[in-house]
Amino acid sequence: MSVLVVGSIALDTVKTPVEEHADLLGGSASFAAVSASFFTSVNMVGIVGTDFPKEHVKFFSDHKINTEGLQVVEGKTFRWSGEYMWDMNSRETRSVALNVFEHFTPKLPASYTETPYILLANIAPSLQHHVLNQIKKPKFVIADTMDLWISTAVEDMLSLMKRVDMLILNDSEARQLTKQTSLIKAGYAILEQGPKYVAIKKGEHGCLLFGKGRFFSCPAYPLEEIKDPTGAGDTFAGGLAGYLASVDGGEVTFDKLRMAVVYGSVLASFNVESFSMDRLQTIKPADIEERYHLFRMMSQFESLK
Amino acid sequence: MSVLVVGSIALDTVKTPVEEHADLLGGSASFAAVSASFFTSVNMVGIVGTDFPKEHVKFFSDHKINTEGLQVVEGKTFRWSGEYMWDMNSRETRSVALNVFEHFTPKLPASYTETPYILLANIAPSLQHHVLNQIKKPKFVIADTMDLWISTAVEDMLSLMKRVDMLILNDSEARQLTKQTSLIKAGYAILEQGPKYVAIKKGEHGCLLFGKGRFFSCPAYPLEEIKDPTGAGDTFAGGLAGYLASVDGGEVTFDKLRMAVVYGSVLASFNVESFSMDRLQTIKPADIEERYHLFRMMSQFESLK
Repeated sequence: MSVLVVGSIALDTVKTPVEEHADLLGGSASFAAVSASFFTSVNMVGIVGTDFPKEHVKFFSDHKINTEGLQVVEGKTFRWSGEYMWDMNSRETRSVALNVFEHFTPKLPASYTETPYILLANIAPSLQHHVLNQIKKPKFVIADTMDLWISTAVEDMLSLMKRVDMLILNDSEARQLTKQTSLIKAGYAILEQGPKYVAIKKGEHGCLLFGKGRFFSCPAYPLEEIKDPTGAGDTFAGGLAGYLASVDGGEVTFDKLRMAVVYGSVLASFNVESFSMDRLQTIKPADIEERYHLFRMMSQFESLK
Repeated sequence: MSVLVVGSIALDTVKTPVEEHADLLGGSASFAAVSASFFTSVNMVGIVGTDFPKEHVKFFSDHKINTEGLQVVEGKTFRWSGEYMWDMNSRETRSVALNVFEHFTPKLPASYTETPYILLANIAPSLQHHVLNQIKKPKFVIADTMDLWISTAVEDMLSLMKRVDMLILNDSEARQLTKQTSLIKAGYAILEQGPKYVAIKKGEHGCLLFGKGRFFSCPAYPLEEIKDPTGAGDTFAGGLAGYLASVDGGEVTFDKLRMAVVYGSVLASFNVESFSMDRLQTIKPADIEERYHLFRMMSQFESLK
């Protein structure tokens, strides 16, 4: 089954302690859609300016991402610039120019409105609501978010949580939203706000998945070197949603979601190995399977017979 | 097979955001020995003053811990006082009184010198060396350490690393010792300094185990509430060493160590549920097995059939 992905599409300038690159393809929808496309067909929703390089649109199409919902409007594409500190975990935003993104009103093509799996990648919760309003009968809705929306649009966030099946957020956002220090308490507190499932991302420490009375702790795939963490969370969410849609055969269960979290982590581990989507451009489904099996071997308690 | 445990024995005063307790049984050898005793017989080495409550010695004996190597000397027992911040992760030492511990020279009873498994719990590396010198033919030697020794006794640390099979340390200590930001790089860098195995503890994020070309990522057992983290690392090391000694049947392998890391984590998860060793006093082997199986269920990628 197919996945609808809505979010930002950006041109990023990224500085790390060793390198700097300008005007890279970025944005939550870009990373998430490309990641999901390894598993299933993707309907993309987003906005770019007339300056958006055609090669990026071709890249989406090469990944069989449906760009019918990609609005191209007069003006400049959303631009973001950030710098990673020496530990590659903390990041400072250097500049943001919303440009055409400022007046984005997602309008879904008729062909999108019956997409069963919905990934509301990181954008303002009001826009996430707006997209949801146009979907006829979603089967499973996942929302990603960020600290900015918890600070500035918490009411929209709280009402959104009652409409989604799963919320994805990182550890500091989970603490910010619930005022709980313990991530275990935070996860269960979020479940009480509406979603049936919550994934709390912990960066280099992996991810925690919560369901009613269920829990799964997924480590991070061990990488010796991280070139650029930008988009890791979006790639995770995209891989998760794409995998889930691909194994569709009835209800979404905790066991399916657990595997989806692992596949999302695998995709994210590839993504941070180079800038922008450079690494995702080179991998094949067999690479994903190989890393999944290595990852499983490294994470099991007892030897596989 | 049995385990020799050497380390500190202390009376702790611990303050958390909600409680404060004075003169609790503590110290690296106490936590480690009690934890190991759930799996095998333990030979304890340490020093206390004449003020050390007899009930604590009885507690050790009740756990079938051999206290022949426990020196009782005129004076006061080592005292430590610390305070945990609101997140229960960061800690400030409020006071340290070494007392009789200041002139501790571990002297092993003759009956200890052929103990096959050695856990050098956290004390000065010069004392860890001193204990090792008295062991005839150790089968497997594990050393735990702390940031203080990496700052003040790095030469002793480096020479110790060439004499041990396994080093245990926490994430910030691994970074401090290797000057590597990436814990994955840090783990492999430590292997090049001598030990065949390294365990990097990450507190609430679990533990990473490294061997030559092998890697295991163990999550933390999810606890909603942590009452007192004091001794979690020592309890982990003790459980690990005890389990390892208990499954002895030939060489120590990576697969056995992986299980040992999980059992160490399980023991540590019990320990932080109350102050001092209060929780360890109440658990039975069946509780450990039950939590191990729950933990395994929560950590596997695919459903167990």
